[in-house]
Amino acid sequence: MKKLHVATGNPYDIIIDRNLLNSCGTYIKPLTKANRVMVISDSNVFPLYGESIKKSLENTGYQVFTYTFKAGEEQKRLSTINEMYNALADNGFTRKDLIVALGGGVTGDMAGFAAATYLRGIDFVQIPTSLLAQVDSSVGGKTGVDIPQGKNLVGAFWQPILVLIDPNTLSTLSDKLFADGMGEVIKYGCIKSRELFEKLERLNANSIIDDIIYDCVSIKRDVVQNDEREKGQRMLLNFGHTLAHAMEKEHNYSTLTHGEAVAIGMVMMTLASEQNNLTPTGTANRIARLCEKYSLPTADTTPIQKIVRSTSGDKKSAGNAISLIILKDIGCSQTYKIDKKDLLQFIAPKDKM
Amino acid sequence: MKKLHVATGNPYDIIIDRNLLNSCGTYIKPLTKANRVMVISDSNVFPLYGESIKKSLENTGYQVFTYTFKAGEEQKRLSTINEMYNALADNGFTRKDLIVALGGGVTGDMAGFAAATYLRGIDFVQIPTSLLAQVDSSVGGKTGVDIPQGKNLVGAFWQPILVLIDPNTLSTLSDKLFADGMGEVIKYGCIKSRELFEKLERLNANSIIDDIIYDCVSIKRDVVQNDEREKGQRMLLNFGHTLAHAMEKEHNYSTLTHGEAVAIGMVMMTLASEQNNLTPTGTANRIARLCEKYSLPTADTTPIQKIVRSTSGDKKSAGNAISLIILKDIGCSQTYKIDKKDLLQFIAPKDKM
Repeated sequence: MKKLHVATGNPYDIIIDRNLLNSCGTYIKPLTKANRVMVISDSNVFPLYGESIKKSLENTGYQVFTYTFKAGEEQKRLSTINEMYNALADNGFTRKDLIVALGGGVTGDMAGFAAATYLRGIDFVQIPTSLLAQVDSSVGGKTGVDIPQGKNLVGAFWQPILVLIDPNTLSTLSDKLFADGMGEVIKYGCIKSRELFEKLERLNANSIIDDIIYDCVSIKRDVVQNDEREKGQRMLLNFGHTLAHAMEKEHNYSTLTHGEAVAIGMVMMTLASEQNNLTPTGTANRIARLCEKYSLPTADTTPIQKIVRSTSGDKKSAGNAISLIILKDIGCSQTYKIDKKDLLQFIAPKDKM
Repeated sequence: MKKLHVATGNPYDIIIDRNLLNSCGTYIKPLTKANRVMVISDSNVFPLYGESIKKSLENTGYQVFTYTFKAGEEQKRLSTINEMYNALADNGFTRKDLIVALGGGVTGDMAGFAAATYLRGIDFVQIPTSLLAQVDSSVGGKTGVDIPQGKNLVGAFWQPILVLIDPNTLSTLSDKLFADGMGEVIKYGCIKSRELFEKLERLNANSIIDDIIYDCVSIKRDVVQNDEREKGQRMLLNFGHTLAHAMEKEHNYSTLTHGEAVAIGMVMMTLASEQNNLTPTGTANRIARLCEKYSLPTADTTPIQKIVRSTSGDKKSAGNAISLIILKDIGCSQTYKIDKKDLLQFIAPKDKM
């Protein structure tokens, strides 16, 4: 068992261990005086682990309710949150009761947002089951929901009281969803750990995934502790993401997974920062080779003008400026603020201008 | 001009002065780097003050947008919040931009919730125009929206960056809406200030309203500073409110104003605590006389069983217990926790049991 402590405003632990799910109630019990627990999950994940989670919670003495929504990013919308509110209110949930988010990033983000806003905030526990959620979205307290104008444009910072990561759940992931998570794993190496990056080059991540998860969560923990509300350093976690979000939008959040878009975004941004003499030549190529090793794409057919236009709603915008995240080198990142109107020129390949 | 500082997690000032509205931009300017300001108001208030607010903000250099919704408690719902998100996103609002809430409690609560959740939180300024909002809801950072199961069951704690109170706006209030605010004013006297209570008995509040607002806001400031997230002392502000919310619900949020319901709730709760020997005999009668002086009702025809049943969704519930707020004496309050199943017996007049 590995344990990490996150010292945010409301501090909490992250526990990584195989076979955690069957005994989740034991870990949750000391942290809450809840009578009722609402397990929120989707139609893919609940059938796999829902009943054993429920059983463990019931054995610990909780009255357990469940709310399951149809799996898919297109369900990440306010009407689904509204249904969660109804499930909570109709079953008499009070401020001391608890939500358990069981699933991938969509589930965690939405269940977290419901927890942040029901009765002005109740406790919740994250049980992430995808690699993406385990290494990234379940830690740090970002919750959110999409609106037609963009992804996660509505949300709240709301920390869980516990994160339980059981790497056994990765065995049921498709190759595409495993690669989806690897996009974020590679990102952590790029922005903060040359050691992790080189480990990913040298070894096969799948065979040492428990360690990899620990490395990633540990990096994220350090960043989030120092900047809970993304005023500065936390923005580094968005390396590749400004372009990724724009590409996901252009693909209608369907053909490209988030991790795939991040992979392409990291390579594009690094090519751009290389040609602007901010990053050593060859860095983008090295990132691209690592992405390819983990079955991730490194380029997209969407015209660069369209991608840049789509970045206008990016949350890292402030007025007319946008903060880009670029690499000084593998393992070392920085923010680089430019005027929005200069973004196209910064990113577009010079030989095509 | 009177100024109060609120030392919450994100500290802010409350400024009370006549003719503030026409120069609101001057007060806001030093506090924000916003380019855009969204003035959120309702169809009653915007026609009165909207244009002068807009003019002052434009003169200060902001690009000003407005979102106006149909006045009325029935608009306090998630679909209205959704429209606010659209107005913000469609007009390219970023994290550094600003919302101004111009109006009564419904406007402040909803604009505040939109500010708390758009892009995971942006700044907002409260410009309360009703007595209720000036003495109570604009201070303390409680934001919220109603769902069919109850009032304010969805929301967030989110502090404004500034509260601007212009008592001139009270001149356009109907007598009923002035009385609505007086319910909360009397509450402050009951829970925290015998001096204020006796001032309200001795003098006519209307003729010294600037001082009264200052007294109330000052009490609320002290309470909120010590307990921003309502874990303890802040619950005292809910004196009369558990029963008030239940009565408002039974009246479908129409015939009874909030202040009227609070007046009845304070009298009922104090009659109950008197008969349980927790409050000196005669206290309820004294509160009732003061409420009557300010045109507030002191009793309701709803059967007590119905009221008690309606308290089940109260936010001060925790599991099977509920925290009542009772007076040890005028100016001195305490929480009193009882089992939900004993509530009817506690409240019902003994001679009718």
